This record gives sequence, C-alpha cells and structure tokens, in this order.
Amino acid sequence: MPPRRCTIARHSSDYDSDSYSHYDHDNTTMRCISCLEDYDPDDAGTCKVCYEEANETEEELKREIDDLKAKVAFLKLSSPVDHHHRFYGPTSSDVVLVASDDGPGGPAVPVPAHKAVLVSRSPVFKAMLENDMEESRSGTIKISDVSYDVLRAFVSYLYTAEACLDDQMACDLLVLAEKYEVKHLKAHCEKFLMAKLNWDKSVVNYAFAYRHNANHLLEAALALITDNMDKLTKNEDYTELVENNPRLVVEIYEAYLKKQVNTAASKGSSIKL
Amino acid sequence: MPPRRCTIARHSSDYDSDSYSHYDHDNTTMRCISCLEDYDPDDAGTCKVCYEEANETEEELKREIDDLKAKVAFLKLSSPVDHHHRFYGPTSSDVVLVASDDGPGGPAVPVPAHKAVLVSRSPVFKAMLENDMEESRSGTIKISDVSYDVLRAFVSYLYTAEACLDDQMACDLLVLAEKYEVKHLKAHCEKFLMAKLNWDKSVVNYAFAYRHNANHLLEAALALITDNMDKLTKNEDYTELVENNPRLVVEIYEAYLKKQVNTAASKGSSIKL
Repeated sequence: MPPRRCTIARHSSDYDSDSYSHYDHDNTTMRCISCLEDYDPDDAGTCKVCYEEANETEEELKREIDDLKAKVAFLKLSSPVDHHHRFYGPTSSDVVLVASDDGPGGPAVPVPAHKAVLVSRSPVFKAMLENDMEESRSGTIKISDVSYDVLRAFVSYLYTAEACLDDQMACDLLVLAEKYEVKHLKAHCEKFLMAKLNWDKSVVNYAFAYRHNANHLLEAALALITDNMDKLTKNEDYTELVENNPRLVVEIYEAYLKKQVNTAASKGSSIKL
Repeated sequence: MPPRRCTIARHSSDYDSDSYSHYDHDNTTMRCISCLEDYDPDDAGTCKVCYEEANETEEELKREIDDLKAKVAFLKLSSPVDHHHRFYGPTSSDVVLVASDDGPGGPAVPVPAHKAVLVSRSPVFKAMLENDMEESRSGTIKISDVSYDVLRAFVSYLYTAEACLDDQMACDLLVLAEKYEVKHLKAHCEKFLMAKLNWDKSVVNYAFAYRHNANHLLEAALALITDNMDKLTKNEDYTELVENNPRLVVEIYEAYLKKQVNTAASKGSSIKL
C-alpha cells in the first residue's frame, strides 16, 4: 500500500517532539502509529490514547490466552488409547467400551477407559456408572452402531479434547456426542462441518443436522440452500430427501417463503405470494 | 475528559460522507472512532484501516478465549475431595494420599484420588505408580510435612486446576508442587505471591523463593529489596536471615552492587566503589 499523503494545512502550535510524534509539520502529514504510513484526515481512525489502550487490551488478551493454553495443557489427560499408554500397568483402566458393529473380522477389540473420566465428561455415562446398572457391574459398556476407529477417537477426545477430523469422522463423532451428551465434542464437530459446508454437501448436511439436533449446522445449511433455490432440484441429494423425508423438504420451502416475506418487508414493499 | 479541539485548517478536498467520517469539515476537527472525541493531529493514533484491523484482531482473540474457556470447563474433572463426589461409589478412587503431620488429633484422614489423574499431572507420581513401588502395591501414598487441608487442596488442584489461595496456602502448595513437579500449580502459586508482594514480606519471600527454586518470585523480591536498601537492616526478617542464612544476605548485597554498577554504566559515568 503506497503512503497516503495528507492534504491538511500545517499546524502551527503545541508541537510535541516526543518519540511518538506522528504529525509531520514539515510535510503537513499525519503518520499512523501502527502501519507507519502517512494518512489523510478522512482516513483517520483513533487518537493516540485510544490506540495505546487498544494495544494494552490486546496484550492482556494474549496473556489470558497463554494462561488458558497452559491450563488446557495441564488438564489434558493422556489418552488410554494412545500407543504410549500402558494399558495393563497399575494405572490401567477400570472399564472398557466395546463397539458393537465391528463386522465379521472377529470379536470387537475393547477400548480401555477410566470410570472417573467417563463420569466427568458425560451425564449418560454418569447415570450408567454411578447407579447399579449392568455396565457398572460388568465394567463393560457396549456402544452400538459404531466402528472401532470412531469409538477409539471418541474415548480419546474424552481425555484430550482433541480429535483428528474429516467429514465422516466429524459426523460419526457428532452422533456419539449427541447420544452421550458430550456437548463440547458435539460443538467441535459441528464447527468443523460448518467450516467445510458447501453447496454440494448442503442438502445432506441439512438432513444430518436435523436428525441429530445440530442446530447451528442446520441453520447454516438451510441458509445456503435458500440462497440457491434455483439450483435446489438439481442437487443430487434432493430427490433422495424428497423420497425419504418429504417433511424436511417442506421446511426448506417454508423457510424460503419466510425469507422472501422478510426481505420484502425490510424493503418496505410487498411481494405477490 | 473534555473534547480536545483540533486546530488544523479546514481540509477542502476528497470529502467522504460515509458513516465513518470523523473529519469534521465545518469545525475543522478530527473525531476518534473509538472514544468519539475530537482530537488534535499531535494526538493522532492510527489510520482507519489499522483501527478496523485492530478491532478484528480483538474480536478474534476474544473468540479464542471463549473456545479455550470451554475447553478448560470440559477438561476439568470433578474433584474427589468435594462434598458432592461419591467417595465410595463404583467410580471411587483407586489410591489414597495420607498427610503425615496431622498432629495428635488421631489417625490421618486419607484423601481419595485416581492413579490415572496423579500419573497425568506429576512425573513423580508417575514414576511412583507405574513402577512396582510400595505406593503402587499398597495404593497409599504418604505425604510428609503437610496438613490435611493443604493435601486436600493439592489433590483438588490436580483435578480442577483451581485453588482458593491465601499467603500461607500459596506457600504450602508451592512447596508440594515443587516436590511433585506439578509445574502449573507452582507457577500459579508463584504468580499469586508476586501479586501480593510488598516491602514487609520481601525478605521472607526472598528466602522462601530461594529455598524452593521459585525464580520469578526470587527476582521480584530481590528487585524490591535492592530498591529499598536504606530500609533493609530495619526489616524485621533481616536479622533472622543474617543468622540463619548469611550467604543469602551476601547475595542481596552483591545484587545491589551490580545494580549500582549497571546504573552508573548506563549513565555513562563511574561510581566510586
């Protein structure tokens, strides 16, 4: 960006020659303290005091971030499913989770965990393990409709608040997070899917979000769809949705209509419905 | 703060009448976008672009803080020593810690905990519990020179990263944190003691910091002492320190001398040593 030349007349009084001086009397320009470029009064932003206050605020926020990052690092537990953890040492798990759809490859591999962690992270596990239920007595929790890899990632997240996501993993983990009421994981997956949302995925994500009460994703997908209604019937997932869940399609049209009415109202005109 | 009146001459070209306009052509003043007060060119801070960028940065930092706070809330475990926790339920502890100086009031009350948590938080507990040591076999860890209340606060911190501190508790927890290599807690206590540091506590804090390798506290206390050398011999902890640890007193004088030499050097003069 080339320096913007200021065109104001020379200021003749109260000249302060301290190191912050950014009003160049010889050239009748003002200099931005931040980008160090000259600027025109029409491009003026803040006074020096506000600039310094904003700078202090930014430093404070950065310090708070450093403190919080250190706290997260401290609070993270080593995952019982990572390779460095000793499964069978004296600190080994007191409960195992077993995926129930591991297919024909043999018996499901149990994923080790600790009751204290599961209870802290999920109200569902809490109810299961703190009451005299089958899972509590046997020390085995069966998780249906999930693969070993997803279950492993799920348990790992409960210890570390971290997961390596792609679209499929984000959907699978969101389903588990919804089922076991792990809100933080659900929000994490939803945020990931929203960041990756595009037209091709919009209908399928809309249906998915609806099924699993992912309201932020639902709104984002619906907004994307109603912004592109001319392409809707050509979207490859549309026909399937009409067949499988026509009610959901109706909701798309209702949302579109509502948007049209609101747009018309905000323009102060009326549309022909 | 009363509005600062700008004295620059009226600017006659390129007037932009958008809502951000802060250069008042009728009154030949500029207005700060942030505090909305008029300012003089000598008080100019930043251009509009930099102001807007700084604003965006601040918003981003605040979002990051919210995300990190949510992560901390997720990762916190419920402390096994709080009153709502079920000590003897199916998720109860697999290890107890016992304070060894509970005095004549009867046998020490054990503090319940989980090996998995202790191992995650402290390299010392990790070595103790993952190897075939007495503590690992018996499930009891004896902690010497500590009261029940301090031990309870220590264990609670390992689950929650939170502690209710006063001067005494901060010192006691710092000692335990140093012994069991819980760096996050040590830094937390040190920060607390530094924030509370004043002249009356400076000598005793200096000696304490020295004993327990609390280097930030040590530096802060030493700086405070060497800034007030005229009062040093009257400080009520000074005589005791001379008696108990004269080497530490020597280090104060050495630091003072070094400071004097540095000050003289930075002024480009010499002092009579």
